[in-house]
Amino acid sequence: MTSSIFGHMFRVVNFGESHGPAIGCVIDGCPPGMELAEADIQPDLDRRRPGTSRHVTQRREADLVQILSGVYEGRTTGTAIALMIRNEDQRSDDYDDLVDTFRPGHADYTYWRKYGLRDPRGGGRSSARLTAPMVAAGAVARKWLRSAYGTTIRGHLQQLGDIEIPFENWEEVGRNAFFAPNKSVVARLEQYMDELRKAGDSCGARVRVCAQSVPVGLGAPLAAKLDADIAGAMMSINAVKGVELGSGFGVITQRGSQHSDELTPEGFLSNHAGGVLGGISSGQDIEVSIALKPTSSIRLPRRSVNRALRPVTVVTKGRHDPCVGIRATPIAEAMLALVLMDHALWHRAQNADVRLDVPAIAARAP
Amino acid sequence: MTSSIFGHMFRVVNFGESHGPAIGCVIDGCPPGMELAEADIQPDLDRRRPGTSRHVTQRREADLVQILSGVYEGRTTGTAIALMIRNEDQRSDDYDDLVDTFRPGHADYTYWRKYGLRDPRGGGRSSARLTAPMVAAGAVARKWLRSAYGTTIRGHLQQLGDIEIPFENWEEVGRNAFFAPNKSVVARLEQYMDELRKAGDSCGARVRVCAQSVPVGLGAPLAAKLDADIAGAMMSINAVKGVELGSGFGVITQRGSQHSDELTPEGFLSNHAGGVLGGISSGQDIEVSIALKPTSSIRLPRRSVNRALRPVTVVTKGRHDPCVGIRATPIAEAMLALVLMDHALWHRAQNADVRLDVPAIAARAP
Amino acid sequence: MTSSIFGHMFRVVNFGESHGPAIGCVIDGCPPGMELAEADIQPDLDRRRPGTSRHVTQRREADLVQILSGVYEGRTTGTAIALMIRNEDQRSDDYDDLVDTFRPGHADYTYWRKYGLRDPRGGGRSSARLTAPMVAAGAVARKWLRSAYGTTIRGHLQQLGDIEIPFENWEEVGRNAFFAPNKSVVARLEQYMDELRKAGDSCGARVRVCAQSVPVGLGAPLAAKLDADIAGAMMSINAVKGVELGSGFGVITQRGSQHSDELTPEGFLSNHAGGVLGGISSGQDIEVSIALKPTSSIRLPRRSVNRALRPVTVVTKGRHDPCVGIRATPIAEAMLALVLMDHALWHRAQNADVRLDVPAIAARAP
Amino acid sequence: MTSSIFGHMFRVVNFGESHGPAIGCVIDGCPPGMELAEADIQPDLDRRRPGTSRHVTQRREADLVQILSGVYEGRTTGTAIALMIRNEDQRSDDYDDLVDTFRPGHADYTYWRKYGLRDPRGGGRSSARLTAPMVAAGAVARKWLRSAYGTTIRGHLQQLGDIEIPFENWEEVGRNAFFAPNKSVVARLEQYMDELRKAGDSCGARVRVCAQSVPVGLGAPLAAKLDADIAGAMMSINAVKGVELGSGFGVITQRGSQHSDELTPEGFLSNHAGGVLGGISSGQDIEVSIALKPTSSIRLPRRSVNRALRPVTVVTKGRHDPCVGIRATPIAEAMLALVLMDHALWHRAQNADVRLDVPAIAARAP
Repeated sequence: MTSSIFGHMFRVVNFGESHGPAIGCVIDGCPPGMELAEADIQPDLDRRRPGTSRHVTQRREADLVQILSGVYEGRTTGTAIALMIRNEDQRSDDYDDLVDTFRPGHADYTYWRKYGLRDPRGGGRSSARLTAPMVAAGAVARKWLRSAYGTTIRGHLQQLGDIEIPFENWEEVGRNAFFAPNKSVVARLEQYMDELRKAGDSCGARVRVCAQSVPVGLGAPLAAKLDADIAGAMMSINAVKGVELGSGFGVITQRGSQHSDELTPEGFLSNHAGGVLGGISSGQDIEVSIALKPTSSIRLPRRSVNRALRPVTVVTKGRHDPCVGIRATPIAEAMLALVLMDHALWHRAQNADVRLDVPAIAARAP
Repeated sequence: MTSSIFGHMFRVVNFGESHGPAIGCVIDGCPPGMELAEADIQPDLDRRRPGTSRHVTQRREADLVQILSGVYEGRTTGTAIALMIRNEDQRSDDYDDLVDTFRPGHADYTYWRKYGLRDPRGGGRSSARLTAPMVAAGAVARKWLRSAYGTTIRGHLQQLGDIEIPFENWEEVGRNAFFAPNKSVVARLEQYMDELRKAGDSCGARVRVCAQSVPVGLGAPLAAKLDADIAGAMMSINAVKGVELGSGFGVITQRGSQHSDELTPEGFLSNHAGGVLGGISSGQDIEVSIALKPTSSIRLPRRSVNRALRPVTVVTKGRHDPCVGIRATPIAEAMLALVLMDHALWHRAQNADVRLDVPAIAARAP
Repeated sequence: MTSSIFGHMFRVVNFGESHGPAIGCVIDGCPPGMELAEADIQPDLDRRRPGTSRHVTQRREADLVQILSGVYEGRTTGTAIALMIRNEDQRSDDYDDLVDTFRPGHADYTYWRKYGLRDPRGGGRSSARLTAPMVAAGAVARKWLRSAYGTTIRGHLQQLGDIEIPFENWEEVGRNAFFAPNKSVVARLEQYMDELRKAGDSCGARVRVCAQSVPVGLGAPLAAKLDADIAGAMMSINAVKGVELGSGFGVITQRGSQHSDELTPEGFLSNHAGGVLGGISSGQDIEVSIALKPTSSIRLPRRSVNRALRPVTVVTKGRHDPCVGIRATPIAEAMLALVLMDHALWHRAQNADVRLDVPAIAARAP
Repeated sequence: MTSSIFGHMFRVVNFGESHGPAIGCVIDGCPPGMELAEADIQPDLDRRRPGTSRHVTQRREADLVQILSGVYEGRTTGTAIALMIRNEDQRSDDYDDLVDTFRPGHADYTYWRKYGLRDPRGGGRSSARLTAPMVAAGAVARKWLRSAYGTTIRGHLQQLGDIEIPFENWEEVGRNAFFAPNKSVVARLEQYMDELRKAGDSCGARVRVCAQSVPVGLGAPLAAKLDADIAGAMMSINAVKGVELGSGFGVITQRGSQHSDELTPEGFLSNHAGGVLGGISSGQDIEVSIALKPTSSIRLPRRSVNRALRPVTVVTKGRHDPCVGIRATPIAEAMLALVLMDHALWHRAQNADVRLDVPAIAARAP
């Protein structure tokens, strides 16, 4: 792993800036022979795409992905898959004021100190737009995992600001602008966001992501435990400030007699572990929850400094998500898919010869 | 990073099992010329050591570290530093019952499925004992960071089961068996643990770790963001199920007008970010909080299965921490030190030539 | 390093196939603040470009490079630099016969066995065309090395088939189609190649590449010795079958009293080592020599098999270099530049604090 | 790969110095379930061991290997295997003169410039003694390769100074002190070495190493081609200055009609490629040849400088191999085994699902 390279075996190299000519990624290590076309990737990009409702940024990007390499006659060849997405809607003049100013809560100041210069247009390299190539790569990983193990990876909004969203069903998630798994709460979410937007403010969110039918045995202890890699992948998503597996921070007040998941011949009796034991997948559902901070770009005035370290007041214009958490669901799904894919390949590299004469324990007892 | 190798530039290779002849690590990439002796490392190992109070495991290990390479006439040579700790107190017969049984909440089942066999003695490779080499390596990193930047890394217990521990001062942390930063709460903690031990049960904990005087600019976006690497490092510690930076899960209900830390020429006005913006250190304190699950080894009977997938009842004998969180503080400190060290070297590799004509903003306004 | 990713710190990710839409690379880890434009890269690509004389392949490619990311207002930002070269002259029908046939000496058979399928158009991923992105990345490395240390990297053809080419001067190298450092030999080379082309055959070559003003101290023993990384980089160039440093295979018959380069206060007295001692650069010129095999694509009939393992006769049509060594000089230069760049960054990561009170020994005594 | 870490998937971490307490390695990524004991490793170490004849260094080291981790009840567990070899015969006083002096042809000067200090005892980290851990790790790789694919890896001395050694048979290799595959030449070799020793000088050598029954498909183009990794691994052996595959430098004067190995249904008709096509193993024998320079430690006086850059004369005392090439055979075998092992695991990670309905072509036609 290096600054633009995610993963150990199934590597994703991310490139681009928010307002450059193009963004994209190179996927290295994809198994050969898998059917792959742009149409396999575009739906996930469309789910993440800006401008799809009044509750997210109004930037208009088609986010059309193009496969530049690694696919021949509709099948992956096992060589590097390059994916490119052209940037289209680049109103860079929105950012003219910000060239010399550090927006609070943004990477402006830290990029400048680290590199001595920065691309200020739309956040440049630090823009959440750079999650799009990860979503594209994630679509490739998901397709392979699904065909190899039947693995499904799904996520939803679990909390929006003060509003908790009880899980009702997966079907509803795709039917509203919030990735909310509960129809009855949608009206409240819309009203909440409308008020927030009027106030010129932003709010945080919690997103849950879950992988089912994950084979037992994924994870490389000690240094690349499955949960450690998941935590790293999730924390690398823009705005994420917390990551939990299974019971997460709830474990603090749990007793051992309550937390540890009992095993029976029919299956596990609970899943407080969130599908990982000792850094290795147990075959139970991988359960992850992340906290996303409120967007730092708000219309309310904030104190800051400019490059000469003089005090300034920052009021963000331009187009921004008042809650970045809303569009985070497909991103979190993609990151989880990438980690699982990576470890699935790694696992068989080392352990392809392991044979056991009893079946794996079911994810849950009936 | 691979299964036993932590880090990008300052690499720590961990080896050993709980009841093998020795555990240890090889540190690759340490800058040369630093004074280093066993005495620089031993104090941190002593803080993590078992058997120091009745509230932790009674296994007796001196945990004496020996430097095998990489140091000549008291100075690091820039070549691989091998550190070895002999295992001494190996009552493997305590584990005889467990050879064929999977303890709930442990890695027994997942190691067996992954590798087809496992070393059952004391958890083998999955034992928390393998955090000792990380603590040893962390001591090397801390020494270098302190001398290079004046960085200090400290941690404390923040919550033990149901008992929250308000922060009073750092001095108290070293004076009690719990790493509690508050003298008045110690008696309650002792009573709580005594009751827990009598009940044969275990509890979770929360640990806070904090780095001060961290230079601005550490972190390699996008794929090795400082906070992503910290999250991964923390989640790789045994029993950790959740990681937060700064306001962590608290950001969900924060507003943007509240969360983003304002900048002034005199310093930052708050630190909700926990010292990282856009994956790069801001110069503010790095603030991390982790949740540790209750020990799975308890004396209360639990349902499980054996290798033939027949139902069994597991009652753990042997010597175990009723709250692994108690000894986690020096481990979390070490992991944070390792990540910072790694990124400090990486940062100067790429950005050693960056010169700015204004000073960095202070960690906090006076 | 993985299948498409070169380097440790200054990473180059190569993508594309000979007849896909585009080829290119992503450079990760470039220091920020360096002036960079397409015009810095294009000249090196033009030197490697096909179709520039009758002695090389007649494929017509402008090989125009486009910077997609990592540069803002003419300077590197420290983030991933994506470079793209569109493929233009793709006469894929030339390859129709080869879809089911394995050309002797080519990667056709091995790619098919490894991946189960392959892109047969122009060699697909195994085409020497994929050295173009390395040349482009090498141009970035060279520019940085030149400005940081005054390092110059130059190469020339040293032998073409049976014709040895005595070194006369560097100036001549750019004035003929062969990268020959000797004007008087050019007519013989032209005649040799004309005869070879007429015969429908091909020949091997030897290329020398040399780096001057390399700082002492580059190289990371034991596992990433400078010479080991150079050897790996050179051997990864298409058609290379041998690599030497300094006296190379000549050392076999040398005596120790002859080989080891004596040091004096005025400088080294010889350079049999080729600029590397113990895996670390000595400050002397890095001297590398490589052997390139004759092109396997020839018009003479060769025995082979098809995918059904039936015997076939292969006669290569299409456009090919009768001596791939001719265009190898800029490629070898680029690979050497990439290795030096990589180690220059790595070196200062670990050893930026090393201070010595005596100057380095001169590359050679006057 | 980093300075002490070899390999991608099957990683070997080397530690130690010539005169420190111990040397050794940690192997990360070994498949589980393989029977492994010290007795599997010791024979290879014994072949490399010093002091076995009058033609090599007289240092007395038992080189007894101890397994510290990763093996349980005689089988590999899939976790890190730590191997340790205690240093015993450390006459450090032999090196007192050299503390401030740079021996010509040695790493003394470059280590000092790179790190600012160095361990001068017996070459410290740059000693050829550090090849012992690679030989130990190589023994593990060989055992696995042999059981998985029937792969055998053998080497022999091919030239000693001016004496070429025609290959007669493999059996003879183990019967003389030179790893010479030809009984009739041994007397001449002994005389040659005796004269050289009397003269106080040293000589170079060529070693050939060959792997048979290598599965087709190993190698990860473009950046980690099998031949590129082999070249890097060989060049990382102390004293190696040149590496060839197959016809090596002989390809320069070959024609394409001669070089490229024709395929028939019965097998390949020749092996000029040395078993690698396009960076991927072809199933033919891997044929590697390396050139080793004459030992730089000789009794003849040589000019050099000391740390103050004052001129000095160096005459090496102590115990040294007058031809390091003699003991290089088991080292080269081990390095080749490690590269093949690494790629075998990597290959199945990506391509485990590839199924072809025709068999691989035989290594050679009958």
